[in-house]
Amino acid sequence: MEKIILDCDPGHDDAVAIMLAGKNESINLLGITVSSGNQSIEKTTLNALNICQYLDIDVPVAKGCSHPIIREVEVCEAIHGESGLDGFEFPCLKKELDSRHAVQFIIDTLLNEKDKVTIVVTGPLTNLAMALRLEPKIIEKIKRVVLMGGSYQMGNVTPASEFNVLCDPEAAHIVLSSNLAIYMITLDVTRKVLCYDKIVERMKKINNKASDLFVALMKVFNENQHKVFGYLGAPLHDPVTIALIIDESLVQFKHTNTEIDLSHGSSYGRTNSDLFDYLKKEKNSYVSVDIDVERFWDIVETSLKKYEVK
Amino acid sequence: MEKIILDCDPGHDDAVAIMLAGKNESINLLGITVSSGNQSIEKTTLNALNICQYLDIDVPVAKGCSHPIIREVEVCEAIHGESGLDGFEFPCLKKELDSRHAVQFIIDTLLNEKDKVTIVVTGPLTNLAMALRLEPKIIEKIKRVVLMGGSYQMGNVTPASEFNVLCDPEAAHIVLSSNLAIYMITLDVTRKVLCYDKIVERMKKINNKASDLFVALMKVFNENQHKVFGYLGAPLHDPVTIALIIDESLVQFKHTNTEIDLSHGSSYGRTNSDLFDYLKKEKNSYVSVDIDVERFWDIVETSLKKYEVK
Amino acid sequence: MEKIILDCDPGHDDAVAIMLAGKNESINLLGITVSSGNQSIEKTTLNALNICQYLDIDVPVAKGCSHPIIREVEVCEAIHGESGLDGFEFPCLKKELDSRHAVQFIIDTLLNEKDKVTIVVTGPLTNLAMALRLEPKIIEKIKRVVLMGGSYQMGNVTPASEFNVLCDPEAAHIVLSSNLAIYMITLDVTRKVLCYDKIVERMKKINNKASDLFVALMKVFNENQHKVFGYLGAPLHDPVTIALIIDESLVQFKHTNTEIDLSHGSSYGRTNSDLFDYLKKEKNSYVSVDIDVERFWDIVETSLKKYEVK
Amino acid sequence: MEKIILDCDPGHDDAVAIMLAGKNESINLLGITVSSGNQSIEKTTLNALNICQYLDIDVPVAKGCSHPIIREVEVCEAIHGESGLDGFEFPCLKKELDSRHAVQFIIDTLLNEKDKVTIVVTGPLTNLAMALRLEPKIIEKIKRVVLMGGSYQMGNVTPASEFNVLCDPEAAHIVLSSNLAIYMITLDVTRKVLCYDKIVERMKKINNKASDLFVALMKVFNENQHKVFGYLGAPLHDPVTIALIIDESLVQFKHTNTEIDLSHGSSYGRTNSDLFDYLKKEKNSYVSVDIDVERFWDIVETSLKKYEVK
Repeated sequence: MEKIILDCDPGHDDAVAIMLAGKNESINLLGITVSSGNQSIEKTTLNALNICQYLDIDVPVAKGCSHPIIREVEVCEAIHGESGLDGFEFPCLKKELDSRHAVQFIIDTLLNEKDKVTIVVTGPLTNLAMALRLEPKIIEKIKRVVLMGGSYQMGNVTPASEFNVLCDPEAAHIVLSSNLAIYMITLDVTRKVLCYDKIVERMKKINNKASDLFVALMKVFNENQHKVFGYLGAPLHDPVTIALIIDESLVQFKHTNTEIDLSHGSSYGRTNSDLFDYLKKEKNSYVSVDIDVERFWDIVETSLKKYEVK
Repeated sequence: MEKIILDCDPGHDDAVAIMLAGKNESINLLGITVSSGNQSIEKTTLNALNICQYLDIDVPVAKGCSHPIIREVEVCEAIHGESGLDGFEFPCLKKELDSRHAVQFIIDTLLNEKDKVTIVVTGPLTNLAMALRLEPKIIEKIKRVVLMGGSYQMGNVTPASEFNVLCDPEAAHIVLSSNLAIYMITLDVTRKVLCYDKIVERMKKINNKASDLFVALMKVFNENQHKVFGYLGAPLHDPVTIALIIDESLVQFKHTNTEIDLSHGSSYGRTNSDLFDYLKKEKNSYVSVDIDVERFWDIVETSLKKYEVK
Repeated sequence: MEKIILDCDPGHDDAVAIMLAGKNESINLLGITVSSGNQSIEKTTLNALNICQYLDIDVPVAKGCSHPIIREVEVCEAIHGESGLDGFEFPCLKKELDSRHAVQFIIDTLLNEKDKVTIVVTGPLTNLAMALRLEPKIIEKIKRVVLMGGSYQMGNVTPASEFNVLCDPEAAHIVLSSNLAIYMITLDVTRKVLCYDKIVERMKKINNKASDLFVALMKVFNENQHKVFGYLGAPLHDPVTIALIIDESLVQFKHTNTEIDLSHGSSYGRTNSDLFDYLKKEKNSYVSVDIDVERFWDIVETSLKKYEVK
Repeated sequence: MEKIILDCDPGHDDAVAIMLAGKNESINLLGITVSSGNQSIEKTTLNALNICQYLDIDVPVAKGCSHPIIREVEVCEAIHGESGLDGFEFPCLKKELDSRHAVQFIIDTLLNEKDKVTIVVTGPLTNLAMALRLEPKIIEKIKRVVLMGGSYQMGNVTPASEFNVLCDPEAAHIVLSSNLAIYMITLDVTRKVLCYDKIVERMKKINNKASDLFVALMKVFNENQHKVFGYLGAPLHDPVTIALIIDESLVQFKHTNTEIDLSHGSSYGRTNSDLFDYLKKEKNSYVSVDIDVERFWDIVETSLKKYEVK
């Protein structure tokens, strides 16, 4: 059972990541910390609370940084809508926020746990980077970082760069230069995980609260990704992180050097992963190179089924 | 019949480009200009002269810039060997250089031709960029630029950048900001054109001076690319430019904005081609997105057969 | 009486800044926070505690970030020596650190104070920048920031950049883009405040614990600055901040835009203060243009005299 | 007698540089090459021809590059007016351009001269940089480069950068990395050479064609510099180059490394001259540190007097 903190910016695909982590016997979810990204910090925090309450996931939710380290806030309304999670009406919210800032929650949790903890990040890396700079001692308490972010082929916000990393390139640099074991689930594999209608139909048959949420969210997510990128099935980026923890064989990685472009030029925020070791630099990341797509959907299905029937 | 100037840095794949252009009824080769790149300017010029003499291609050869505009000279000895064209012994060289500098040859030829001329570049873009800056009037005499260079996925020298563009990113910027019609044959398609042994066998059967040269060069080229990149068949980048002129349907392009990364950071020299029009910038290039590989080898075979039998 | 938090990295000139602030009726020193800079965080924190204990300055001292936001730690041992405060033997240390991290101390103090508080920074801006990113609400509780840092003429670490800003350019950017009222005491004026021997002689006559410390520190500081820069009297950068608060007329400022160079090129960390408003950008800083040097030494003398006689 | 080619972009202060060089027994003016800069290439070329004809300076004038290497053309109409040389009515122009491009003129002249030649540049460095890249052999025929450009304190176009260098930073980089002996007359000293009314009065008394031109041009130049920068007397940047050749003791230099900022950030085009050798890089330039202002005006007066009386 792997202890994890899930740092996210829900977000439709973050919501599915939470679903996968919420009731899984191989995951001990210590808490959810929230960053801005897919929407403003106010909205993503509200979404995280709503998802947890609705799915009866009883973990602390802590609100994090409202602002990237250097860049201005950029949200992704075209994909995730005005609320950041358009497509589902949650019941009246009663669940309360943890009193601590997400950065403090990460530091406290890590320093108090006896075991090493995995940090899963499915949004910009601001909260983790801030925690690393504020309290470097946490490094020895982190088992590994599993993050969704980056692309060594084409970006999805600029030709060079992927959304999560481009939202806060300096934070990504801090994490990648921390000497932690970093597993990067990049666009290069998440673009293969396309949530076609037949997948939505398959999950619909589960017919519980989780599948209801999944189906409602994927409807809007697929529509928006179709409008923006022309996808028939939307790439379900974020849940691959949690699915990897559930089944380590899901994704193939290559141990490689990854350097974040901090130049503020046209490739700002690019993740230059040196898969062919052209530059002979120190390896600081395990970068995704392939994924077993069928296996992924099986994990999603199995995970959704763990929620109680309506 | 398209009038062209071929600017190249032979180089094994440049040599094949020259072969394709040398005796083709759809191409009027006005001259060959040489740049440094795969090897130093002295060596690439010698190679160009040798290829022309050996294949009886009677066009002027002009020696160009020895040095990129800003970066230091970088050659590619690991792939092309000490001579830049290892693998073939040419007979004693009698062919002489054109007395003009390549840049002046380009300017003079363009200003003197009644028709518009296509510039094909299979090396760094230094000579063309210098000509554009020295004599902007040539712009109206250029039909189009067909170049091998760039990559919107992964580079082949750094994670971000392709060799020809990275050798002289500022030259690439000058060309791309010239308002010319630019056809970029990028790594993204040339990586599909793999010269497997069976291709070499096929060309060997032609059994003339051209096929002898092809076979000898591909032997070394394949070995070196295998050593450096692990390829079983080496990607034959440069001849795709000439093959496109012979058969316009060979390559599919997308009209898009391409921006060269001039930041001097880790993505220096990257060609950020905005295929999904994320940035809504002015389209300045036709960027290759697919290629008919079988058709390409047919063009190579047909072109080699045009040389006289031994 | 202006409430201040003094964020510093002692350092010889920081030590004098603390002296000036410690017993001054126009300053209400709420606490001292410490950053790395002139030496490592361990050493600068020790120095701050020692100075406070020795001079009987009874304020909390909180230890801050050990590491700049992006750059690697760089210290200034050539000027400040192995301890960061070479030249004086302090008695056995009994004063204890505040239990909070400097960043948390800044946030807590600001949010708990009814009045607005001035933040004085005489080292890298890491702690303040981290506090601003962690808790943006503090912005409305900050009266102004008075900092020693930057240069619009020549730098003192690179041709372009000044030490405090270059130690953490991203932190400086965060502070300068915060919409706070920022008073920058730059090298351009602190280079006029040269602590010649005659100044040391003058302060020596005060003959109390403060002047003893001043004289001992300036001896080493002057020697080191002479070795490194060739100065006969060392520029006493940091205390100008506190002296300004004691006498607002001391320094002349120009309201101007200042942009930090974050390019990672040869001017990384430069403070481009647009004194002539070439670029018509929004004014975000009051940048020092002149100083009344005689008045400064009077303030130093008066401030040192406030410490009790031996 | 020093053989020189004067590469300029007249421009009021360039005009004075031409005056100084035109009839001086210590200078053998081989030709004038023109760049864009203070105005477009068409206008600066016209101005150079007009000045030469009016002052009976019988040297070839060759038109150069219309466009910087990377940046877009930027002119300085606020200072030099619509014509680039507002303030004087020249007689009908009969003098003709040299048939060669300025870059070719530089190359031909250098390769044909037995002696080494000094290149004086008072505009952007585009022409010289292009010549160096086109024909590296000229390096051994260049005695030295004396240029007006750069600033190690504040710029005059941006806070970081000086006009001539910022117009074409890549050209400046090419020149500074050429291993030539480079004498940089920077803003740091030319700002001391202020053409107050009393100077204009003094030159007026010479009462010949040259002084007429000087007086008319300085009237407009002073007015415009006053409007833009608030100067009472305008800094007469460019003629310091020629005055140095006339009297080598005029300017004091420091042998130092100068690096051009090519980052495209806020300090793009800055000349980072490492006067204190912080970075221990190879020295590639003699950078101006002081000037004998009185001696300068004597040189101007003496030089103007060499023109025949009306």
